[in-house]
Amino acid sequence: MNKDILKKSLAELIGTCFLVMIVVGSGIMAENLSSNELNVLLANTIATGAGLTALILIFIAISGAHFNPAVTLVMFFKGEISMQESLYYICFQILGGLLGVILANVMFGLEAIQISENVRGGTNIYLAELIATFGLIMTILGVRRISMLAIAPAVGLYISAGYWFTSSTSFANPAVTLARGFSNTFTGIDPNYILPFICAQLLGAYISLKVMNFLQE
Amino acid sequence: MNKDILKKSLAELIGTCFLVMIVVGSGIMAENLSSNELNVLLANTIATGAGLTALILIFIAISGAHFNPAVTLVMFFKGEISMQESLYYICFQILGGLLGVILANVMFGLEAIQISENVRGGTNIYLAELIATFGLIMTILGVRRISMLAIAPAVGLYISAGYWFTSSTSFANPAVTLARGFSNTFTGIDPNYILPFICAQLLGAYISLKVMNFLQE
Amino acid sequence: MNKDILKKSLAELIGTCFLVMIVVGSGIMAENLSSNELNVLLANTIATGAGLTALILIFIAISGAHFNPAVTLVMFFKGEISMQESLYYICFQILGGLLGVILANVMFGLEAIQISENVRGGTNIYLAELIATFGLIMTILGVRRISMLAIAPAVGLYISAGYWFTSSTSFANPAVTLARGFSNTFTGIDPNYILPFICAQLLGAYISLKVMNFLQE
Amino acid sequence: MNKDILKKSLAELIGTCFLVMIVVGSGIMAENLSSNELNVLLANTIATGAGLTALILIFIAISGAHFNPAVTLVMFFKGEISMQESLYYICFQILGGLLGVILANVMFGLEAIQISENVRGGTNIYLAELIATFGLIMTILGVRRISMLAIAPAVGLYISAGYWFTSSTSFANPAVTLARGFSNTFTGIDPNYILPFICAQLLGAYISLKVMNFLQE
Repeated sequence: MNKDILKKSLAELIGTCFLVMIVVGSGIMAENLSSNELNVLLANTIATGAGLTALILIFIAISGAHFNPAVTLVMFFKGEISMQESLYYICFQILGGLLGVILANVMFGLEAIQISENVRGGTNIYLAELIATFGLIMTILGVRRISMLAIAPAVGLYISAGYWFTSSTSFANPAVTLARGFSNTFTGIDPNYILPFICAQLLGAYISLKVMNFLQE
Repeated sequence: MNKDILKKSLAELIGTCFLVMIVVGSGIMAENLSSNELNVLLANTIATGAGLTALILIFIAISGAHFNPAVTLVMFFKGEISMQESLYYICFQILGGLLGVILANVMFGLEAIQISENVRGGTNIYLAELIATFGLIMTILGVRRISMLAIAPAVGLYISAGYWFTSSTSFANPAVTLARGFSNTFTGIDPNYILPFICAQLLGAYISLKVMNFLQE
Repeated sequence: MNKDILKKSLAELIGTCFLVMIVVGSGIMAENLSSNELNVLLANTIATGAGLTALILIFIAISGAHFNPAVTLVMFFKGEISMQESLYYICFQILGGLLGVILANVMFGLEAIQISENVRGGTNIYLAELIATFGLIMTILGVRRISMLAIAPAVGLYISAGYWFTSSTSFANPAVTLARGFSNTFTGIDPNYILPFICAQLLGAYISLKVMNFLQE
Repeated sequence: MNKDILKKSLAELIGTCFLVMIVVGSGIMAENLSSNELNVLLANTIATGAGLTALILIFIAISGAHFNPAVTLVMFFKGEISMQESLYYICFQILGGLLGVILANVMFGLEAIQISENVRGGTNIYLAELIATFGLIMTILGVRRISMLAIAPAVGLYISAGYWFTSSTSFANPAVTLARGFSNTFTGIDPNYILPFICAQLLGAYISLKVMNFLQE
């Protein structure tokens, strides 16, 4: 592992760590302040959309700001990142996510590692997750054609919409999905549902890659 | 239908499909979480404004990101798109809208096709719809003079305001209006009111085109 | 009145009309949906911030997008607009504001012209209005040095903050203040308080002009 | 003190004054309108995120728009600002913050100077404050590599997220922390907790400087 890959991978780790802290932490804060579920999701949305946009702006010039194995795989299939680098990215994203969920739990004075009991099953939920990830990849591949800088707000805004228009609240990210298994709070997911979520996400990403290839060739 | 028009029309279909999923889906999600109508409209606004901005950024370089027959007609009257292409655009927008409402219903575990019973009548409501579409066309024609990229946030922000300052909540889009007839949820519209809505929208778009032609000539 | 001034003045009229429709209309919509004052002000804020940003983007290349006699006077004192043009601007801003409040009332099925009974008095409120307008002029004069395009979001964001951090909710605009006297709804102002509001606004604008002249000379 | 440093320092004073007025004032307004803590924090977030973005756009070309001793120290350690200028900056930031809290209190008809009784203690809270400031410095150092203009929205968005994902609500600013000791309202902090907050902030800023130096060298 050379120094260049180390820096990029570390950027992916820090970015994914902050992303998960933002997603999980804002859910905990909101739940602490109110039991109104719409308001909790609204606070979660605003924190996630705002934070994700900032994180992409911070790291896009260093690592490309993937923070997401589905995005890294798409870039690998497009030949823009080597297999070795992809593997480092994905490992560091997963580690960053796990670190993020632990820090979120600890910051709010909760048990550092928990197992979520948040049931998120059903074919319609998996379809939602497929559509959510289809849209995320479509956003990245579509917007980078006009402006690298515009990717950050576009992704932040797309995910803000996704929290509401998909019945799964748009996880759309295997590393974040895995991490969310370890906080038994608003944004958690019972580990039994992690695998179908990730399968739906990868399928949605793959279909999106094919569709955008056709539209943009 | 050559391959170029096919790609553009497909972009319009996917964009309009996502737009309707976002509008209708976020309304369903919000209604599921709360019965407070202000909060439901707020969630609907944030999802729509955010999602619409992202969608325009994604597709503006491919098809122009109309997603709206009123916009396509304005561009036809300005001589920027041929009649044949306009017709394809409008057909694919309508198809995309219908696909979007079905997917929104299905994602939330509801009947795929429903007939809305949401009454939205009255002269003042039609006036609101005329003003809403006047403003939408004014936004597009005004902002593209300074920056193509700025169209996306400007339209997203204008529609976010429109959800609140017009008594009709600014449908401002015939294809989306038609699609919203098929979900008996928060954002639906009883089919009896679709025709007057579309007439008001087209009239508002036409007046706006004339006014902006004068201001910008 | 030559055709160029007519177009610019008309742009100011339409822009101020939409601005007042957005401010007043969104207040009516929010009040119709909820009696929770925080939520009503939140909806009012989001609609105003979003709509104002869009309006400035639309009209900045035509008239400069003042929509505000205090802004026009500052530009006159800076020698960037003639006295004749300033007078046309201010007259058309006032007319646009009055048209806007009437349309807002009518769209929501209320009496077209009403007299507000919304009491907004007190030295601390006038101080707030002075600070609010000081900040608005500071925003315009500061941001245009870096980017004309950035004025639009900066002003929209500043006013969004102003709705909350000033006890007067930042009217900061004599034409809009006058218009808001004619809707007895959430955003109205009892006409007895219009004059002190406008005095405080003009004083704040003048001090801001002097301070920014010093900082930027 | 030459005229150039005076102008820059004055810009820091005005900017920090408005920042504290926005943070504290919006908290008072929100508390006056509702007792729902989630909604109060939401209003506080929107006002702060919006206002901070506008303030940075206004002053970035004059003083660099630090408004924050932690930021000024980081720039000093990076050799981009002299020790003398740093000291002026920090003094004027502190003065601006104190002026801001007094004006916020006065605008809302409260005692001009109060001592907050808002308890904000605990190791997990200090950890949150360290992480919050780590992220703020990371945002500034990361984003300025791509675009000076993008710093403003990035910081505004990062702090908006920070209000929710950190258990301390991300003060992340020694001058603002000190000022918030003087308003016994929603955003206040009991003076006993100011010192540990500032220590955690400075430590977070220092670690962030080192990490970003490594990633960007």
